[in-house]
Amino acid sequence: MTSRDGPSEQRLYFEDLRVGQRFTTASSYTIDETQIKAFAAQFDPQPFHLDEEAGRATVFGGLVASGWHTAAITMRLIIEGGPRFAGGTLGLGAELSWLKPVRAGDTLTVRGEVLETTPSSSRRDRGRVNMRTETLNQLGDVVQVCVSKVMVPCRPTASGGWGSEPSR
Amino acid sequence: MTSRDGPSEQRLYFEDLRVGQRFTTASSYTIDETQIKAFAAQFDPQPFHLDEEAGRATVFGGLVASGWHTAAITMRLIIEGGPRFAGGTLGLGAELSWLKPVRAGDTLTVRGEVLETTPSSSRRDRGRVNMRTETLNQLGDVVQVCVSKVMVPCRPTASGGWGSEPSR
Repeated sequence: MTSRDGPSEQRLYFEDLRVGQRFTTASSYTIDETQIKAFAAQFDPQPFHLDEEAGRATVFGGLVASGWHTAAITMRLIIEGGPRFAGGTLGLGAELSWLKPVRAGDTLTVRGEVLETTPSSSRRDRGRVNMRTETLNQLGDVVQVCVSKVMVPCRPTASGGWGSEPSR
Repeated sequence: MTSRDGPSEQRLYFEDLRVGQRFTTASSYTIDETQIKAFAAQFDPQPFHLDEEAGRATVFGGLVASGWHTAAITMRLIIEGGPRFAGGTLGLGAELSWLKPVRAGDTLTVRGEVLETTPSSSRRDRGRVNMRTETLNQLGDVVQVCVSKVMVPCRPTASGGWGSEPSR
Protein backbone atom coordinates (compact mmCIF):
# COMPACT_ATOMS: atom_id res chain seq x y z
CA MET A 1 0.00 0.00 0.00
CA THR A 2 1.78 3.10 -1.18
CA SER A 3 0.70 6.57 -2.19
CA ARG A 4 -1.72 7.15 -5.04
CA ASP A 5 1.23 7.86 -7.33
CA GLY A 6 2.36 4.31 -6.83
CA PRO A 7 0.77 1.09 -7.94
CA SER A 8 -2.24 1.53 -5.66
CA GLU A 9 -4.63 2.77 -8.35
CA GLN A 10 -6.22 -0.64 -7.95
CA ARG A 11 -9.02 -0.91 -5.40
CA LEU A 12 -8.11 -2.53 -2.13
CA TYR A 13 -10.32 -5.27 -0.72
CA PHE A 14 -10.32 -6.46 2.87
CA GLU A 15 -8.05 -9.38 1.92
CA ASP A 16 -5.45 -6.95 0.56
CA LEU A 17 -4.92 -5.22 3.91
CA ARG A 18 -2.37 -6.29 6.48
CA VAL A 19 -1.43 -4.89 9.86
CA GLY A 20 1.64 -2.67 9.50
CA GLN A 21 0.98 -1.57 5.91
CA ARG A 22 1.82 2.11 5.59
CA PHE A 23 1.00 4.93 3.23
CA THR A 24 1.89 8.57 2.75
CA THR A 25 -0.55 10.80 0.90
CA ALA A 26 0.60 11.88 -2.53
CA SER A 27 -0.48 15.49 -2.15
CA SER A 28 -0.27 18.20 0.48
CA TYR A 29 -2.68 20.96 1.50
CA THR A 30 -1.69 24.51 2.36
CA ILE A 31 -4.22 26.25 4.54
CA ASP A 32 -4.64 30.02 4.46
CA GLU A 33 -6.29 32.64 6.62
CA THR A 34 -9.34 32.94 4.38
CA GLN A 35 -10.00 29.20 4.56
CA ILE A 36 -9.53 29.12 8.34
CA LYS A 37 -12.02 31.95 8.83
CA ALA A 38 -14.53 30.62 6.30
CA PHE A 39 -14.62 27.18 7.91
CA ALA A 40 -14.88 28.72 11.37
CA ALA A 41 -17.69 31.07 10.36
CA GLN A 42 -19.66 28.07 9.14
CA PHE A 43 -18.85 25.47 11.78
CA ASP A 44 -16.75 26.71 14.69
CA PRO A 45 -17.32 30.44 15.22
CA GLN A 46 -14.91 31.13 18.07
CA PRO A 47 -12.69 34.22 18.22
CA PHE A 48 -9.38 32.35 17.88
CA HIS A 49 -10.63 30.75 14.63
CA LEU A 50 -12.13 33.96 13.24
CA ASP A 51 -9.76 36.79 13.96
CA GLU A 52 -6.00 37.16 14.36
CA GLU A 53 -6.31 39.96 16.91
CA ALA A 54 -8.86 38.13 19.05
CA GLY A 55 -6.72 35.01 18.88
CA ARG A 56 -3.73 36.86 20.29
CA ALA A 57 -5.46 37.29 23.64
CA THR A 58 -6.11 33.54 23.96
CA VAL A 59 -4.07 30.48 24.83
CA PHE A 60 -3.24 30.13 21.10
CA GLY A 61 -1.61 33.53 20.73
CA GLY A 62 -3.10 34.05 17.27
CA LEU A 63 -5.42 32.72 14.59
CA VAL A 64 -5.63 28.91 14.50
CA ALA A 65 -7.67 26.51 12.42
CA SER A 66 -10.55 24.61 13.99
CA GLY A 67 -9.57 21.04 14.83
CA TRP A 68 -12.57 19.96 12.76
CA HIS A 69 -11.06 21.81 9.81
CA THR A 70 -7.80 19.90 10.27
CA ALA A 71 -9.79 16.66 10.44
CA ALA A 72 -11.67 17.53 7.24
CA ILE A 73 -8.46 18.43 5.38
CA THR A 74 -6.95 15.14 6.55
CA MET A 75 -9.92 13.31 5.04
CA ARG A 76 -9.42 15.15 1.76
CA LEU A 77 -5.76 14.21 1.61
CA ILE A 78 -6.64 10.57 2.30
CA ILE A 79 -9.37 10.49 -0.36
CA GLU A 80 -7.10 12.22 -2.89
CA GLY A 81 -3.99 10.25 -2.26
CA GLY A 82 -4.35 7.59 0.38
CA PRO A 83 -5.31 3.94 0.09
CA ARG A 84 -8.17 3.38 -2.31
CA PHE A 85 -10.58 1.01 -0.67
CA ALA A 86 -13.09 -0.82 -2.83
CA GLY A 87 -16.47 0.69 -2.02
CA GLY A 88 -14.91 3.96 -0.88
CA THR A 89 -13.68 5.08 2.52
CA LEU A 90 -16.64 4.26 4.75
CA GLY A 91 -15.94 5.53 8.24
CA LEU A 92 -17.64 3.93 11.20
CA GLY A 93 -15.86 6.15 13.67
CA ALA A 94 -12.66 8.00 14.49
CA GLU A 95 -10.63 8.93 17.54
CA LEU A 96 -8.95 12.31 17.14
CA SER A 97 -6.21 13.98 19.13
CA TRP A 98 -5.21 17.53 18.34
CA LEU A 99 -1.62 17.95 19.42
CA LYS A 100 -0.52 21.28 17.95
CA PRO A 101 -2.32 24.28 16.48
CA VAL A 102 -2.60 24.64 12.70
CA ARG A 103 -1.98 28.18 11.50
CA ALA A 104 -2.37 30.08 8.22
CA GLY A 105 0.41 29.11 5.83
CA ASP A 106 0.88 25.61 7.23
CA THR A 107 1.22 22.82 4.67
CA LEU A 108 -0.28 19.53 5.79
CA THR A 109 0.47 15.98 4.70
CA VAL A 110 -0.79 12.67 6.06
CA ARG A 111 0.85 9.36 6.73
CA GLY A 112 -0.97 6.27 7.85
CA GLU A 113 -0.67 2.71 8.99
CA VAL A 114 -3.02 -0.25 9.24
CA LEU A 115 -3.40 -1.08 12.96
CA GLU A 116 -5.92 -3.89 12.89
CA THR A 117 -8.06 -5.88 10.46
CA THR A 118 -11.17 -7.63 11.76
CA PRO A 119 -13.52 -9.71 9.60
CA SER A 120 -17.15 -8.86 10.27
CA SER A 121 -18.75 -11.40 12.57
CA SER A 122 -22.19 -10.92 11.08
CA ARG A 123 -21.50 -10.26 7.37
CA ARG A 124 -19.12 -12.43 5.38
CA ASP A 125 -18.72 -9.82 2.64
CA ARG A 126 -16.88 -7.17 4.68
CA GLY A 127 -14.42 -6.42 7.45
CA ARG A 128 -13.30 -3.56 9.64
CA VAL A 129 -9.92 -1.93 9.25
CA ASN A 130 -8.46 0.33 11.93
CA MET A 131 -6.05 2.88 10.54
CA ARG A 132 -3.88 5.32 12.42
CA THR A 133 -3.14 8.51 10.54
CA GLU A 134 -0.84 11.34 11.50
CA THR A 135 -1.31 14.78 10.01
CA LEU A 136 1.99 16.66 9.81
CA ASN A 137 2.86 20.27 9.15
CA GLN A 138 5.76 21.50 7.02
CA LEU A 139 8.12 21.27 10.01
CA GLY A 140 7.31 17.60 10.49
CA ASP A 141 5.33 18.25 13.68
CA VAL A 142 2.38 15.94 14.15
CA VAL A 143 -0.62 18.26 14.52
CA GLN A 144 -3.30 15.56 14.65
CA VAL A 145 -3.49 11.83 15.25
CA CYS A 146 -6.60 9.99 14.12
CA VAL A 147 -7.41 6.32 14.61
CA SER A 148 -10.29 5.57 12.28
CA LYS A 149 -12.47 2.53 11.77
CA VAL A 150 -13.29 1.88 8.15
CA MET A 151 -15.60 -0.74 6.66
CA VAL A 152 -13.98 -2.49 3.69
CA PRO A 153 -15.65 -5.04 1.40
CA CYS A 154 -14.17 -8.47 0.79
CA ARG A 155 -13.14 -9.40 -2.73
CA PRO A 156 -16.27 -10.33 -4.63
CA THR A 157 -16.88 -13.99 -5.28
CA ALA A 158 -18.54 -15.56 -8.31
CA SER A 159 -21.87 -15.05 -6.59
CA GLY A 160 -21.26 -11.32 -6.27
CA GLY A 161 -21.15 -9.48 -2.97
CA TRP A 162 -20.87 -5.95 -1.72
CA GLY A 163 -17.42 -5.50 -3.26
CA SER A 164 -18.85 -5.96 -6.72
CA GLU A 165 -20.79 -2.72 -6.45
CA PRO A 166 -19.50 0.32 -8.27
CA SER A 167 -17.37 2.61 -6.19
CA ARG A 168 -15.39 5.72 -6.95
CA MET B 1 -26.03 23.72 32.71
CA THR B 2 -28.94 24.20 30.36
CA SER B 3 -29.32 25.42 26.81
CA ARG B 4 -28.17 28.88 25.75
CA ASP B 5 -31.76 30.10 26.10
CA GLY B 6 -31.55 29.35 29.77
CA PRO B 7 -29.49 30.98 32.46
CA SER B 8 -26.20 29.73 31.01
CA GLU B 9 -25.21 32.99 29.33
CA GLN B 10 -22.60 33.16 32.05
CA ARG B 11 -19.23 31.61 31.29
CA LEU B 12 -18.57 28.25 32.86
CA TYR B 13 -15.32 27.64 34.71
CA PHE B 14 -13.91 24.25 35.59
CA GLU B 15 -15.35 24.53 39.11
CA ASP B 16 -18.85 24.99 37.65
CA LEU B 17 -18.85 21.61 35.92
CA ARG B 18 -20.13 18.41 37.49
CA VAL B 19 -20.38 14.87 36.20
CA GLY B 20 -23.92 14.24 35.01
CA GLN B 21 -24.73 17.82 34.03
CA ARG B 22 -26.69 17.80 30.80
CA PHE B 23 -27.50 20.25 28.03
CA THR B 24 -29.55 20.37 24.87
CA THR B 25 -28.55 22.83 22.16
CA ALA B 26 -30.93 25.71 21.72
CA SER B 27 -30.93 25.63 17.94
CA SER B 28 -31.18 23.00 15.22
CA TYR B 29 -29.53 22.71 11.81
CA THR B 30 -31.25 21.53 8.66
CA ILE B 31 -28.85 20.16 6.09
CA ASP B 32 -29.64 20.30 2.39
CA GLU B 33 -28.29 18.68 -0.77
CA THR B 34 -26.28 21.74 -1.78
CA GLN B 35 -24.49 21.84 1.57
CA ILE B 36 -23.78 18.10 1.52
CA LYS B 37 -22.24 18.32 -1.96
CA ALA B 38 -20.28 21.52 -1.24
CA PHE B 39 -18.69 20.09 1.92
CA ALA B 40 -17.90 16.84 0.11
CA ALA B 41 -16.37 18.60 -2.89
CA GLN B 42 -14.03 20.42 -0.53
CA PHE B 43 -13.20 17.72 2.01
CA ASP B 44 -14.62 14.27 1.24
CA PRO B 45 -15.09 13.88 -2.52
CA GLN B 46 -16.63 10.42 -2.68
CA PRO B 47 -19.54 9.53 -5.01
CA PHE B 48 -22.08 8.88 -2.22
CA HIS B 49 -21.42 12.39 -0.82
CA LEU B 50 -21.43 14.11 -4.23
CA ASP B 51 -24.22 12.63 -6.28
CA GLU B 52 -27.63 11.11 -5.54
CA GLU B 53 -27.46 8.72 -8.48
CA ALA B 54 -23.96 7.49 -7.65
CA GLY B 55 -25.02 7.07 -4.04
CA ARG B 56 -27.86 4.78 -5.03
CA ALA B 57 -25.43 2.11 -6.18
CA THR B 58 -23.63 2.08 -2.81
CA VAL B 59 -24.30 0.68 0.63
CA PHE B 60 -26.04 4.00 1.49
CA GLY B 61 -28.66 3.80 -1.26
CA GLY B 62 -28.47 7.54 -1.95
CA LEU B 63 -26.75 10.81 -1.17
CA VAL B 64 -25.44 11.04 2.41
CA ALA B 65 -23.47 13.69 4.26
CA SER B 66 -19.81 13.11 5.10
CA GLY B 67 -19.38 12.08 8.72
CA TRP B 68 -16.94 14.98 9.03
CA HIS B 69 -19.74 17.31 7.93
CA THR B 70 -21.97 15.91 10.69
CA ALA B 71 -19.13 16.42 13.17
CA ALA B 72 -18.64 20.02 12.02
CA ILE B 73 -22.37 20.81 12.26
CA THR B 74 -22.40 19.30 15.74
CA MET B 75 -19.61 21.69 16.72
CA ARG B 76 -21.57 24.63 15.36
CA LEU B 77 -24.65 23.67 17.34
CA ILE B 78 -22.55 23.35 20.49
CA ILE B 79 -20.84 26.71 19.96
CA GLU B 80 -24.16 28.40 19.17
CA GLY B 81 -26.20 26.92 21.93
CA GLY B 82 -24.29 24.53 24.15
CA PRO B 83 -22.41 25.17 27.37
CA ARG B 84 -20.37 28.34 27.24
CA PHE B 85 -16.98 27.55 28.67
CA ALA B 86 -14.79 30.40 29.82
CA GLY B 87 -11.93 30.61 27.33
CA GLY B 88 -14.00 28.99 24.57
CA THR B 89 -14.43 25.36 23.64
CA LEU B 90 -10.86 24.16 23.38
CA GLY B 91 -10.87 20.59 22.11
CA LEU B 92 -7.95 18.33 22.92
CA GLY B 93 -9.50 15.38 21.13
CA ALA B 94 -12.72 13.59 20.27
CA GLU B 95 -13.95 10.07 19.75
CA LEU B 96 -16.61 9.87 17.07
CA SER B 97 -19.02 7.11 16.14
CA TRP B 98 -21.23 7.51 13.10
CA LEU B 99 -24.29 5.37 13.69
CA LYS B 100 -26.72 6.36 10.94
CA PRO B 101 -26.44 8.25 7.66
CA VAL B 102 -27.41 11.93 7.52
CA ARG B 103 -29.40 12.81 4.40
CA ALA B 104 -30.60 16.01 2.73
CA GLY B 105 -33.52 17.48 4.65
CA ASP B 106 -32.48 16.07 8.01
CA THR B 107 -32.69 18.45 10.96
CA LEU B 108 -30.01 17.91 13.57
CA THR B 109 -29.93 18.78 17.25
CA VAL B 110 -27.37 17.94 19.92
CA ARG B 111 -27.68 16.86 23.52
CA GLY B 112 -24.77 16.40 25.83
CA GLU B 113 -23.62 15.30 29.23
CA VAL B 114 -20.51 15.84 31.35
CA LEU B 115 -18.83 12.44 31.75
CA GLU B 116 -15.71 13.32 33.69
CA THR B 117 -13.89 16.32 35.14
CA THR B 118 -10.15 16.06 35.81
CA PRO B 119 -8.03 18.87 37.26
CA SER B 120 -4.79 19.32 35.32
CA SER B 121 -1.89 17.65 37.10
CA SER B 122 0.64 20.13 35.72
CA ARG B 123 -1.29 23.43 35.58
CA ARG B 124 -3.37 24.64 38.50
CA ASP B 125 -5.32 27.09 36.33
CA ARG B 126 -7.21 24.53 34.21
CA GLY B 127 -8.86 21.14 34.01
CA ARG B 128 -10.09 18.65 31.46
CA VAL B 129 -13.76 17.96 30.91
CA ASN B 130 -14.98 14.93 28.99
CA MET B 131 -18.36 15.47 27.38
CA ARG B 132 -20.50 12.96 25.56
CA THR B 133 -22.68 14.47 22.87
CA GLU B 134 -25.33 12.80 20.79
CA THR B 135 -26.39 14.29 17.48
CA LEU B 136 -30.00 13.44 16.68
CA ASN B 137 -32.08 13.74 13.55
CA GLN B 138 -35.71 14.87 13.39
CA LEU B 139 -36.89 11.30 14.08
CA GLY B 140 -34.92 11.17 17.30
CA ASP B 141 -32.37 8.73 15.85
CA VAL B 142 -28.85 9.22 17.16
CA VAL B 143 -26.72 9.73 14.03
CA GLN B 144 -23.44 10.47 15.81
CA VAL B 145 -21.97 10.02 19.26
CA CYS B 146 -18.93 12.09 20.18
CA VAL B 147 -16.95 11.94 23.40
CA SER B 148 -14.80 15.03 23.44
CA LYS B 149 -12.05 16.24 25.73
CA VAL B 150 -12.18 19.95 26.38
CA MET B 151 -9.73 22.13 28.32
CA VAL B 152 -11.55 24.50 30.68
CA PRO B 153 -9.92 27.24 32.79
CA CYS B 154 -10.41 27.45 36.53
CA ARG B 155 -12.11 30.51 38.00
CA PRO B 156 -9.56 33.30 38.11
CA THR B 157 -8.10 34.17 41.45
CA ALA B 158 -7.03 37.60 42.66
CA SER B 159 -3.65 36.93 41.07
CA GLY B 160 -5.22 36.37 37.67
CA GLY B 161 -4.93 33.17 35.70
CA TRP B 162 -5.87 31.82 32.35
CA GLY B 163 -9.58 32.21 33.11
CA SER B 164 -9.20 35.95 33.33
CA GLU B 165 -8.31 36.21 29.65
CA PRO B 166 -10.89 37.53 27.22
CA SER B 167 -12.89 34.80 25.54
CA ARG B 168 -15.80 34.78 23.10
